[in-house]
Amino acid sequence: MAPKGFRFSTAEAAIKIPGRRDMALIFSDTEATIAGTFTKNAVKAAPVKISLKKIKSGRAQAVVVNSGNANACTGAQGSKDVRDILSLVSKQLGIQASLSYMCSTGVIGTPLPMERVLPAVHELTESIGTSSLQDVAEAIMTTDTFHKVMHTKFKIGEKTGTISGICKGAGMISPHMATMLCFILTDIAIEKDALNLMLKNSVKKSFNRITVDGDMSTNDTVLMLSNGTLGNTPIACTSPLCKSLQKALDALTYGLSKLIVKDGEGATKLIEVFVKGARNEQEAEKAAFAIADSLLVKTALYGSDANWGRIMAALGYAGVQMHEAKTDIYFNDVKVVSRGVSNKKDRQAARILTSEELKIMIDLRSGRGSVRVLTCDLSEKYVRINAEYRT
Amino acid sequence: MAPKGFRFSTAEAAIKIPGRRDMALIFSDTEATIAGTFTKNAVKAAPVKISLKKIKSGRAQAVVVNSGNANACTGAQGSKDVRDILSLVSKQLGIQASLSYMCSTGVIGTPLPMERVLPAVHELTESIGTSSLQDVAEAIMTTDTFHKVMHTKFKIGEKTGTISGICKGAGMISPHMATMLCFILTDIAIEKDALNLMLKNSVKKSFNRITVDGDMSTNDTVLMLSNGTLGNTPIACTSPLCKSLQKALDALTYGLSKLIVKDGEGATKLIEVFVKGARNEQEAEKAAFAIADSLLVKTALYGSDANWGRIMAALGYAGVQMHEAKTDIYFNDVKVVSRGVSNKKDRQAARILTSEELKIMIDLRSGRGSVRVLTCDLSEKYVRINAEYRT
Repeated sequence: MAPKGFRFSTAEAAIKIPGRRDMALIFSDTEATIAGTFTKNAVKAAPVKISLKKIKSGRAQAVVVNSGNANACTGAQGSKDVRDILSLVSKQLGIQASLSYMCSTGVIGTPLPMERVLPAVHELTESIGTSSLQDVAEAIMTTDTFHKVMHTKFKIGEKTGTISGICKGAGMISPHMATMLCFILTDIAIEKDALNLMLKNSVKKSFNRITVDGDMSTNDTVLMLSNGTLGNTPIACTSPLCKSLQKALDALTYGLSKLIVKDGEGATKLIEVFVKGARNEQEAEKAAFAIADSLLVKTALYGSDANWGRIMAALGYAGVQMHEAKTDIYFNDVKVVSRGVSNKKDRQAARILTSEELKIMIDLRSGRGSVRVLTCDLSEKYVRINAEYRT
Repeated sequence: MAPKGFRFSTAEAAIKIPGRRDMALIFSDTEATIAGTFTKNAVKAAPVKISLKKIKSGRAQAVVVNSGNANACTGAQGSKDVRDILSLVSKQLGIQASLSYMCSTGVIGTPLPMERVLPAVHELTESIGTSSLQDVAEAIMTTDTFHKVMHTKFKIGEKTGTISGICKGAGMISPHMATMLCFILTDIAIEKDALNLMLKNSVKKSFNRITVDGDMSTNDTVLMLSNGTLGNTPIACTSPLCKSLQKALDALTYGLSKLIVKDGEGATKLIEVFVKGARNEQEAEKAAFAIADSLLVKTALYGSDANWGRIMAALGYAGVQMHEAKTDIYFNDVKVVSRGVSNKKDRQAARILTSEELKIMIDLRSGRGSVRVLTCDLSEKYVRINAEYRT
């Protein structure tokens, strides 16, 4: 199922708890082109800082990942640990040091247990090809309740390429990518600039438009590797294939985003907040996130209460142009608010809220800006998970 | 205990549920000077819109309040209801219509049950003086678990004036005042401009620096009435008494703010977030609110986990200048982070977190800006309260 020319391995380093494989290696048989997007948080984990420097080259061949420890706020030690791990990886694999990357996710502020990590890294390099992409997706889980893998096929003439994506999310999910890690692999040859542009476009409309708790993490990373094993002429920005490939990638990243929100910590419902009629896209986005991040809205959704008053209040403080008397609100196809006042359809709407997936649509009637944001409800379980995370 | 020249009454209109007094009247025997601050939410409740117009005169004599219904998002009907109530109040009390005000708090989007409200208003005007200020504080409660009243004395020569404040809070508490209502009454004569300035100064450092859930309501109102019954020369902005009176008022509003956060929905802990060393006060405020509003920080506080990594992550996305390697973090007097890295004092800090009141101090070492913000932890109970609020 995975794209040709990529092989995988997983190992147990017992980073946070023993009993599961918490490290993984993604290896491309040949040098690949790489693009990445990273957290905008001013506090960046050590592996993020290092990846940011390396990725300028646009070349990669190996990515080592661990869960259970974010290697963030770990000072000089944290950076040294990443360098030591990557030296070992490169030496073992016989590749240039500049071609190996590291990503981490988990608890902040604790150094990696190198005495267990280094042997596990050694094992990873020795056992390449013994794990599947799904095994990698499982190894990078933290509070995720299911692993997240998606594949898509893409035809180029007679040839059929594959794009596969895996990711992990759960808590600390917010625009600009939160605690998530995502790896997208393809055997389609894509030029560096095109790969960069396509990934950026895709992330903007997918991972940057989801929220679980509004917190933005120190580790968020999306890496995309194209190894060209398919043998096609590398796709450039000017290529006529660019548009359709972008579409395929967008569908994949949107699908993965949906999985992340669906698996938001303690979430019982997946909600699409669709704002239209804003003055512009920026304002639509602001309005949608004000709703998607409101604790009062999220708890009402959990309680299956079509409390549109809280949506109005959130729109009111979103900092965008909105006129109460112009605003319409829908739950799926039920219009609960017409031009600012109740349609007395709250009971009908409450029935919609008992389903696991629903849509809230807001029409601000002030322009043509529109945006879709994915969010989830807020349950007692979110609180329990996060009150007990480190213990 | 209440300032001289103010009388009170309460009544039951069974607005949301029967069995409690949910309306109150504050009446000054003589015309008073009034100042007010209101929600910055673009969606304003009908009584807020009307108060905003009236308050320009700076004169008032009666304030009628209800809980259980916010009279927000109720369109033209909502405004008409307020005007009808205020006409009745003024007629009954024999005062000019311009001297009466209304404030509401509760559920958004449902019109007031006028068939029950008007008789209750009638009863309020007939029974002036039969209730205490504490009764009023009880009548305006929504999800509050205790009523909130504070008094302070202020000497002017031989005379001793009183300033009393009552408020209600609980959910939807955020900067710029949220769902709170606050009434401050004093018998000290204060000139209109001085009253305005002092109230504004006080609110900035108290009610605008608290957060429970980051949501900002449609109804927030602070009204301050000075009726001059004490007989002092009205205090002007230029008066030497202005500074000490400001101090007294600041202490009162800070005390009331503290009560609101302590009674935050589901809160088990009151936390002061003190940020210093920011480039300026604005950045200090941004940083403090990023921490005070972070769900991950709030749930960790609930779980008594000194998870300073989440504080670092929040500082990192606050949008202020901060350098990880310069930042110090304290829980009370325990320094858990020195210049960005752990002091390995998490266990000591966790013990501090088991107390009901604590302080988190952050030193950004980038300037002289500092600010204090009050917040509370986030418990399962918050979710339960807000998932079930309307039902």
